[in-house]
Amino acid sequence: MEKGRLEAFSDGVLAIIITIMVLELRPPHGAHLTDLAPLLPKFLSYVLSFIYVGIYWNNHHHLLRAARTITGPILWANLLLLFWLSLTPFTAAWMGENHLASAPVALYGGVLIAAALSYTLLVRMLIAHEGPDSLLAQAVGSDFKGWISVALYVGGVGLSFIQPLFGFGLYILVAAIWFIPDRRIEKRL
Amino acid sequence: MEKGRLEAFSDGVLAIIITIMVLELRPPHGAHLTDLAPLLPKFLSYVLSFIYVGIYWNNHHHLLRAARTITGPILWANLLLLFWLSLTPFTAAWMGENHLASAPVALYGGVLIAAALSYTLLVRMLIAHEGPDSLLAQAVGSDFKGWISVALYVGGVGLSFIQPLFGFGLYILVAAIWFIPDRRIEKRL
Amino acid sequence: MEKGRLEAFSDGVLAIIITIMVLELRPPHGAHLTDLAPLLPKFLSYVLSFIYVGIYWNNHHHLLRAARTITGPILWANLLLLFWLSLTPFTAAWMGENHLASAPVALYGGVLIAAALSYTLLVRMLIAHEGPDSLLAQAVGSDFKGWISVALYVGGVGLSFIQPLFGFGLYILVAAIWFIPDRRIEKRL
Amino acid sequence: MEKGRLEAFSDGVLAIIITIMVLELRPPHGAHLTDLAPLLPKFLSYVLSFIYVGIYWNNHHHLLRAARTITGPILWANLLLLFWLSLTPFTAAWMGENHLASAPVALYGGVLIAAALSYTLLVRMLIAHEGPDSLLAQAVGSDFKGWISVALYVGGVGLSFIQPLFGFGLYILVAAIWFIPDRRIEKRL
Repeated sequence: MEKGRLEAFSDGVLAIIITIMVLELRPPHGAHLTDLAPLLPKFLSYVLSFIYVGIYWNNHHHLLRAARTITGPILWANLLLLFWLSLTPFTAAWMGENHLASAPVALYGGVLIAAALSYTLLVRMLIAHEGPDSLLAQAVGSDFKGWISVALYVGGVGLSFIQPLFGFGLYILVAAIWFIPDRRIEKRL
Repeated sequence: MEKGRLEAFSDGVLAIIITIMVLELRPPHGAHLTDLAPLLPKFLSYVLSFIYVGIYWNNHHHLLRAARTITGPILWANLLLLFWLSLTPFTAAWMGENHLASAPVALYGGVLIAAALSYTLLVRMLIAHEGPDSLLAQAVGSDFKGWISVALYVGGVGLSFIQPLFGFGLYILVAAIWFIPDRRIEKRL
Repeated sequence: MEKGRLEAFSDGVLAIIITIMVLELRPPHGAHLTDLAPLLPKFLSYVLSFIYVGIYWNNHHHLLRAARTITGPILWANLLLLFWLSLTPFTAAWMGENHLASAPVALYGGVLIAAALSYTLLVRMLIAHEGPDSLLAQAVGSDFKGWISVALYVGGVGLSFIQPLFGFGLYILVAAIWFIPDRRIEKRL
Repeated sequence: MEKGRLEAFSDGVLAIIITIMVLELRPPHGAHLTDLAPLLPKFLSYVLSFIYVGIYWNNHHHLLRAARTITGPILWANLLLLFWLSLTPFTAAWMGENHLASAPVALYGGVLIAAALSYTLLVRMLIAHEGPDSLLAQAVGSDFKGWISVALYVGGVGLSFIQPLFGFGLYILVAAIWFIPDRRIEKRL
């Protein structure tokens, strides 16, 4: 099965997710620059979420380039990833509205964990389809970066019940790790 | 007529439908995990609707791959399908806000029936255009799965006036039946 | 200049316009089927607007297929058309919320006039670029249907100050005229 | 790396930005044409923002056409540009709701500056990738128009604290300068 429409549909969903999050940034009622101050947590939440969706788009882009064909179950694994990412505007809004309180920061991390595991599932299914000697399998390798990310997210969720800023900090750390698109695939191609 | 833009436009509309539904999931005012509990019916409604739009996207994807060219009336049959699916965010929101009450669950099923019949119309028009000996005609066959779905939806609408959870259960059953993309088309290709 | 991205961007904008209009259909607070009754004007307004955007997408699709290349000014003529169409969710919402009152129905028609004139401008610029002997020029011909539509819209705007349902009726009539995609272009191709 | 998906994703994001801004234009409660009068600043804000996003789409279109391949860092430079443009619905709404008051007009210009610098960064990274003798490098040249725009934006931000209409006027002037797509690239191609 060709991968063109899977890419197009994923591009559409990710483009919408990344853009509708800005609708949560409601303009303040006052017209002074100081009226923007209470929006800071929402803005930080938006920036982090924008970066996360950007990272997923970048890596999805690289991943699908390395794949040649797809199957029906791969379509569903892709939809599972999009489902978890589609919850980002909700968790980002809850986190932003509550000034990075414990439960919202933990839930934000929980959805990041689910998205990361879905992405790993998608990678595994693509590799199973392409074969262990495929370009994709070699490029992904042991996926150390993926597993360390999940470990850091789990740590972030736990920390957020002690001090949510630490949890938020760990999510920023993972974003920083992934900021650079997956060079492994780029190198092999 | 080429099918590229029909696919692109449908991908766009389906991507937007599947994503804007999450805007109904308004973050709760409190910042505790227990504050999320009242959102459960909305969340279930979102999950089921996401799966339904995902199923339609998957099957639309398979269907159009099997088609070679399209016609003006086929464009309109496709728009009719998109129209009914575009009502899903509305019916899902009504159902979620009213904790799966009778009338909203029945209306949700009514729109599913209309979408299913529109999809059948689109399939029939594509087969009429491609011819009875076409790959598409052979792949679709008697469309038993399509008709059983409509029957189950009708049952669900009826049941929802007795016990809406039974109706909701039948919609989940149909989703489960369709979860696997249409193997008939995949096999023939 | 190639036309691929113009088509992709227009598909995206039209897909969003046609889909976000449904956000105006707010679920009623009650959970009975009778609670849907007050939504009827909004629903009618949504249906008519969905059909209009569908008509524009269909004709845009045909028009661009007949064109071979585009120019910078054509990009702007296309954006002008998209601008007027982007106001449809606003005018449709105003019309729907006010139960088809005079001024909203007139404004709805005014935006339809602006969109129709922009479409005509786009057609003329494409023909000027392709040349008078081009396939496109022959297919469009005298564009009688386009001018009769504008005349009917103007009539509808005028009538809406006397009896808005008559104005609304004329808009339905124009939609019916255009319902069938432009056969002229299809025949020539 | 191929540029197809970068274009598709950017088209999606820009199409959504340009379209969701209209959601800020809430229909007035009254049903008379005079009830539209208070919407005028919001409408002007919408028109200017629509033109700006249109200009960015046009120039992005030209820029990417001149490029042959892209790299991972270029994906991020592109996302940075999209990030700043995604704030336009927010700044446009704040400016429109406050009838073009000083701080909102200044912030609107601030985001325009950030978007312009991001665009320049994207151009520089593309030229660095393509080489100093590339078609793109020759077409862009000294980018006088880009730098004069930034200077005018800075002037507009400053003026908006004295008389915001002057600031707003300068933003209109820059839009007028860019209204015509970048002929330099078109000529070279």
